[in-house]
Amino acid sequence: MLNQIDLSKKTPKGTYAKQFDKKSAELGYLGRALRDAKVPVIILFEGFRGTYRGKLINKVISALDPRGFRVYSASKTTERQKMSPFFTQFWKELPPMGGISIHHRAWYFLRNEHDVGDPDEAAEWYNVPFHEINDFERTLYLGGYRIIKLFTHISQKQQEKNIAKDKDSLGSRWEALTPAGIEGVDYKAYRNVYEKMLTETNTVYAPWHVIPMEDVRTGILETMDVLISEFKAALSAAETQKESSQAPLSYASDPSIPSILARYDCNKDMDEKTYDEKLKKYQKRLAELQVELAKRKISTVVAFEGWDAGGKGGAIRRLTSALDPLGYKVNPVSAPNDIEKAYHYLWRFWTKIPEPGEIAVFDRTWYGRVLVERVEHFTPVKDWKRGYEEINEMEEEWAKQGFIVQKFWMHIDPDEQFRRFKAREEDPDKTWKITAEDWRNRDKWDAYVDAVNEMLYRTDTPYAPWTVVEGNNKYYARLKVMSTMIDRMEKALAAVDDKAGSKAKKG
Amino acid sequence: MLNQIDLSKKTPKGTYAKQFDKKSAELGYLGRALRDAKVPVIILFEGFRGTYRGKLINKVISALDPRGFRVYSASKTTERQKMSPFFTQFWKELPPMGGISIHHRAWYFLRNEHDVGDPDEAAEWYNVPFHEINDFERTLYLGGYRIIKLFTHISQKQQEKNIAKDKDSLGSRWEALTPAGIEGVDYKAYRNVYEKMLTETNTVYAPWHVIPMEDVRTGILETMDVLISEFKAALSAAETQKESSQAPLSYASDPSIPSILARYDCNKDMDEKTYDEKLKKYQKRLAELQVELAKRKISTVVAFEGWDAGGKGGAIRRLTSALDPLGYKVNPVSAPNDIEKAYHYLWRFWTKIPEPGEIAVFDRTWYGRVLVERVEHFTPVKDWKRGYEEINEMEEEWAKQGFIVQKFWMHIDPDEQFRRFKAREEDPDKTWKITAEDWRNRDKWDAYVDAVNEMLYRTDTPYAPWTVVEGNNKYYARLKVMSTMIDRMEKALAAVDDKAGSKAKKG
Repeated sequence: MLNQIDLSKKTPKGTYAKQFDKKSAELGYLGRALRDAKVPVIILFEGFRGTYRGKLINKVISALDPRGFRVYSASKTTERQKMSPFFTQFWKELPPMGGISIHHRAWYFLRNEHDVGDPDEAAEWYNVPFHEINDFERTLYLGGYRIIKLFTHISQKQQEKNIAKDKDSLGSRWEALTPAGIEGVDYKAYRNVYEKMLTETNTVYAPWHVIPMEDVRTGILETMDVLISEFKAALSAAETQKESSQAPLSYASDPSIPSILARYDCNKDMDEKTYDEKLKKYQKRLAELQVELAKRKISTVVAFEGWDAGGKGGAIRRLTSALDPLGYKVNPVSAPNDIEKAYHYLWRFWTKIPEPGEIAVFDRTWYGRVLVERVEHFTPVKDWKRGYEEINEMEEEWAKQGFIVQKFWMHIDPDEQFRRFKAREEDPDKTWKITAEDWRNRDKWDAYVDAVNEMLYRTDTPYAPWTVVEGNNKYYARLKVMSTMIDRMEKALAAVDDKAGSKAKKG
Repeated sequence: MLNQIDLSKKTPKGTYAKQFDKKSAELGYLGRALRDAKVPVIILFEGFRGTYRGKLINKVISALDPRGFRVYSASKTTERQKMSPFFTQFWKELPPMGGISIHHRAWYFLRNEHDVGDPDEAAEWYNVPFHEINDFERTLYLGGYRIIKLFTHISQKQQEKNIAKDKDSLGSRWEALTPAGIEGVDYKAYRNVYEKMLTETNTVYAPWHVIPMEDVRTGILETMDVLISEFKAALSAAETQKESSQAPLSYASDPSIPSILARYDCNKDMDEKTYDEKLKKYQKRLAELQVELAKRKISTVVAFEGWDAGGKGGAIRRLTSALDPLGYKVNPVSAPNDIEKAYHYLWRFWTKIPEPGEIAVFDRTWYGRVLVERVEHFTPVKDWKRGYEEINEMEEEWAKQGFIVQKFWMHIDPDEQFRRFKAREEDPDKTWKITAEDWRNRDKWDAYVDAVNEMLYRTDTPYAPWTVVEGNNKYYARLKVMSTMIDRMEKALAAVDDKAGSKAKKG
């Protein structure tokens, strides 16, 4: 790819000044139009060292409204960030609708440094496969984000010249702000790594634009051309999408999806005495496991979905009441608020994943995408249909970082739900728990059964399994949740300790 | 204070169980009522080590909806957090309206550790005066937060017993989650420190409740009694406030406030040639200063207020265009969004203060409290009146951490504003900048003059000065902003380097 780039073009100063002003005005106008159209844009700058990327970025952003963008650099990644799943920091840096994020080196930089640099402690963390990067970018693109990837190219000779000049004129002054020093300068080694990167991640959703920076003025103008063209395309795509989202959408239920829920008998026995005994035992064990997991920095995600009045709240309360509250958080999930609506639908979950060694419980989850949003037609079919794949990818990223990811479907039958609704209405302490909305949802029971079956079918994975909890008997349900968690946690501990043990033996 | 506490009371097991259930139900009910009334509550637990604070907190929260609260611990304060102003982390941990935050040791713990412990590197950071803590709590209380401060008390003999028992039963297992180990056990030294703390911070806005934990069951029940009583008081205060905020409010303008704006002649000369020369020079110098400040981790806050079309945007653009975008952020401030409205009005600014060594520019600011909110009657007089004091305290906290805090009022006269509005309407590239709202605001010019004069009078402080920028000539205005910043930055650098120099000489 790089071989095809013409580095010989030069732009005289006079031509440059005139064109720069013209393109600046256009870019400024398009930037405002994108903000009004609420299109979020992600601009990445990667490339060889010594290509004046800093200057290039400064020139480009001078055309944009300074209130509309944020600039980030992956070279500022902290040790703390390396303890979270790779993409966590980038999810947190996503622009809201109508915003622009500019990345002076992003996820590619980290990956490339791994390929070129000496393997060290953090090596595994950096070594994210290209197909996962492609997945990440595709998820964003299909979620409405425009991703513009720019690669600054240069010859070895010019690179050497620039770096020498840079050293004289700026010395070590800039290190505090532009930590370029940590990037290598072995031109040939980097060229090989970059070729591979450009080839493997040049996708239809987020293609690369190689910018010749041999002549800085030429590079700046070409970058502006790319941005103008991409901004225009993003605007016209936003227009088209507005129209197409008004088109009627239908969904044929898939007969190949098994009736998973029907396999479960909601009625399981459990008397109070056995419950009390086991509850105590399980809570003690969970408290111990919380400490052991915290020591080893193993994080846990516990996701609860289920029928209204299915017993989520009670199960969460029993699960957490023995835990140290400094080590867990319960995240209630309801309809997204104004801020959350301004981001990708998965953003609000990525920003709530557990800290290293902690437990995050979700009372309702990201599965709302394929449950309520599907059943209530809040989201077009083509969008929630993608949810299964996007959610699996997200959970896999967490599991790769060593997270325990466990999902529960709290299952009761319609008769039991009716009894509970009635009981709640009659109990003054519980009547707040029941709303007209809950009664309305009962009418959609069958539509939900279809949605739940498809969800269980498509997202029950080895790294993030579903457990259906038979819930007509609350005692039974709560204990099943707790014993499932104990089992998952014990296995995770054993796996980590085994690994540490075999390492110690080798060492 | 502690001498007055009776530690002898004991509660038998049977009585405890019955009372606990009754109080739990009441606390659960009141917790939901507070959520519905949108009252935010902050509960602090401080006290002697060995008082089973962890168990106490667990028992209390078992009565609350786990989705309604968050638990924090100041013993988890990181090195990174110690590089920001002391109260930053606590502002970030504020609950939203209707939420509860529970602090297993909070700001007092940090301060107390300073008083008891060996002075070290971080000593100065911890050494926050009690009157600043009182200011912080008063600001929150008057902003609608209920602060419930609980101190767990115990005798030296019982403390020794508990710690010995704790050691046997839990060993080192709990360290990962409850870093109690860093808290000292010198009973007498702590008792002196605690007495002083309780005396100096026992304010009407946030009084202390001493809980006797000699007998754990007694302590748990008494804590629940305190919470029930405080929750009830918070609910009834919320009711009263609702009524009183409907009462008519008037504001008599204060004749003692000087007519500060009238002292400035908006017309200052500056030709384009001089401007171009100086602009280049200033931008180069600002770029250098940004690097020097970043190296020394000195943060900068630049706040812009001014008349509509007063030139804020242009000044910000010239100021930032020479800076490295990795080291600054521009924060546009408009009417608060849904999330921001759910917090104290200063929360959205505390969460946007600059990282160590970086620059945060605010395009409109926290002064909206005493400008637009005053003039448009968005906020009751008694509330915005407090703003001067609250804002001064906030800026002083920043300055104490070494921040440069500089505020600009971009000043033009009504005729110049009229010319600019007209010009914007006629320029297709700028017409987006002008709205009907802008024209309406012109009618309130005199009301704004009063508000600006009072703001300049009350909030021009040595640690966060105002600079009024004569703005009819844009060239002059931009250069004045830049030269003011250069001056502030150079002085801050000199002060820090002087201090380092005299330290080095001594050492």
